[in-house]
Amino acid sequence: MNKGHISLSHGGGGVETQQLIQQLFYAHFDNELLRQAEDAAVFEANGALAFTTDSFTVSPIFFKGGDIGKLAVAGTVNDLAMMAAKPLYLSCAFMIEEGLPFQSLERIVSSMALELKKTGAKVVCGDTKVVPKGAVDQLFINTSGIGELMSDQIRPSAQGLQPGDVILVSGDIGRHGAVILAERETLQLQAPIESDCNSVWPAVAALLAAGIPLHALRDATRGGLAAVLNEWAQASAVSIDVQEAKLPISESVQGICELLGFEAFDFANEGTFVLSVPAEVADEALAILHQFAFCKNAAMIGEVLEFQPYPKGTTGLVILTSPWGAQRVLEPPQGELLPRIC
Amino acid sequence: MNKGHISLSHGGGGVETQQLIQQLFYAHFDNELLRQAEDAAVFEANGALAFTTDSFTVSPIFFKGGDIGKLAVAGTVNDLAMMAAKPLYLSCAFMIEEGLPFQSLERIVSSMALELKKTGAKVVCGDTKVVPKGAVDQLFINTSGIGELMSDQIRPSAQGLQPGDVILVSGDIGRHGAVILAERETLQLQAPIESDCNSVWPAVAALLAAGIPLHALRDATRGGLAAVLNEWAQASAVSIDVQEAKLPISESVQGICELLGFEAFDFANEGTFVLSVPAEVADEALAILHQFAFCKNAAMIGEVLEFQPYPKGTTGLVILTSPWGAQRVLEPPQGELLPRIC
Repeated sequence: MNKGHISLSHGGGGVETQQLIQQLFYAHFDNELLRQAEDAAVFEANGALAFTTDSFTVSPIFFKGGDIGKLAVAGTVNDLAMMAAKPLYLSCAFMIEEGLPFQSLERIVSSMALELKKTGAKVVCGDTKVVPKGAVDQLFINTSGIGELMSDQIRPSAQGLQPGDVILVSGDIGRHGAVILAERETLQLQAPIESDCNSVWPAVAALLAAGIPLHALRDATRGGLAAVLNEWAQASAVSIDVQEAKLPISESVQGICELLGFEAFDFANEGTFVLSVPAEVADEALAILHQFAFCKNAAMIGEVLEFQPYPKGTTGLVILTSPWGAQRVLEPPQGELLPRIC
Repeated sequence: MNKGHISLSHGGGGVETQQLIQQLFYAHFDNELLRQAEDAAVFEANGALAFTTDSFTVSPIFFKGGDIGKLAVAGTVNDLAMMAAKPLYLSCAFMIEEGLPFQSLERIVSSMALELKKTGAKVVCGDTKVVPKGAVDQLFINTSGIGELMSDQIRPSAQGLQPGDVILVSGDIGRHGAVILAERETLQLQAPIESDCNSVWPAVAALLAAGIPLHALRDATRGGLAAVLNEWAQASAVSIDVQEAKLPISESVQGICELLGFEAFDFANEGTFVLSVPAEVADEALAILHQFAFCKNAAMIGEVLEFQPYPKGTTGLVILTSPWGAQRVLEPPQGELLPRIC
């Protein structure tokens, strides 16, 4: 195989496509189901399954803390994890611009293989398209995933929040958005930061194993924490009071926000999730989370209240309380903060 | 919702994304699993499932006989059908260039909904990304699909061909490739032709219901009939003798081939499949196929023989026999005949 650049013939469905599949994808993703797959992979199932899809168009394709491949695995694994489903099988579809260095694709595929190992999930089917120069910018990846629901009792949902719950985040917020923004704008940061891009299934598995009643779980991707909390408050017909001082935000992310006039709770995360759990299990849940390096900054940030639009006369559902007791509405994000964040 | 054009904010994960999902996707794909889906759709399963993925990058996005949406449903449904699996659940991920007319997207989504109805499959989860102008050409779609294997006995496979089998095609070959080529080159055709783009599951279901032993099944997409037969011959360690005169090829496709120096068996199909079945059930299988309008030109085109590289001294596995008895090797396609065919 010509190891220089990906050419149109690698997507033609003929000899070169077969070589790329065998020598690159099979070599890194190797497993029995993939090897046996023809037009589709075949597996045995019994019980409740979760099915999700996500496309990744992030730019740049390599960034501090990850790349589009790591993100494509983590993103879909995390969507399954947020349903309390153990990630089992992933599909992987590449849409590649003619001329992409083979080395870049190989680095991305290795990175996917490494991320898969952390979660136990397997890529069992795939697709490769190569399009002429200019028809796509470098590389898009779609991953779809199938997971197994681990419990009949614990079925986290946006509709599951209850007054008396507290809101936890699994780590400091806004790092992925801040890193992508900084890389695009070539900003000098006070302290180097990395994207939080990571598969969170191991942490969710530990919470499930401990029987923590997970009323709601959501990875705070596009739209950030603000989007998740507003969607939850609306779906569950509750209000949420967030203590601004308790939001874990790294100094570098805070710096970028102050410099450019953003809020960390609007920034995307790719390995940080939000939980709504009964107040009485909050400490136990935090202790479990803190065992994982990627959750070392997990914190309780607020509480779920009976529905009470705030301030009076508005439709605000999520309230941000400052350290001095001042309250304002935490609005759902509108518009496009940062295209191609994921 | 602004019905003019798709803007970056439609992919931002905020209010506008929710509006697009609710007012366009949910409106057309409406079903209970989709409505209940959060980060993933949840369904109950029991038995052997097939899982497949495909991205669609076809250009132009509207063509005679279909569009990228119809193709995205048919392509994934057909991959499941080729495993003798009943298509159940599809994911649907749009990667949209900022500025795409809303009307185009709506037409594509309607076309997907119509194609889904023909097969009984449902879109149960999705994803929408909008990227800045120039980052993708108009629209790519990824669909992944889950199907239910219908039989323990009938498991068609590239390794399933046996000497004594005959090779059938479900319709005249090469129409999708010819249509896309003609539209791009703005060729005047002798007679108007349409792409064969179509979901073939109903025909496969009828073959299964009749108990036809389907040794191998494959939709002849990129690489055309030539790619399928060569892959099969190699995987099953057999030779295949194709009678050139029996290949069903429409006049228009033949005309384009003669004009431009192509062969119809190298052209892509998107609703035409190849079958290997025991000779004694060939007539019954053809009679079943002929009941379906999209299979009215189904024909027996050749037979499976003991492995015998031909001509002597070569590694040719698929032989094309002319009406005058002359034989030549039907080579697997190499290179990229036509980028963005699907």
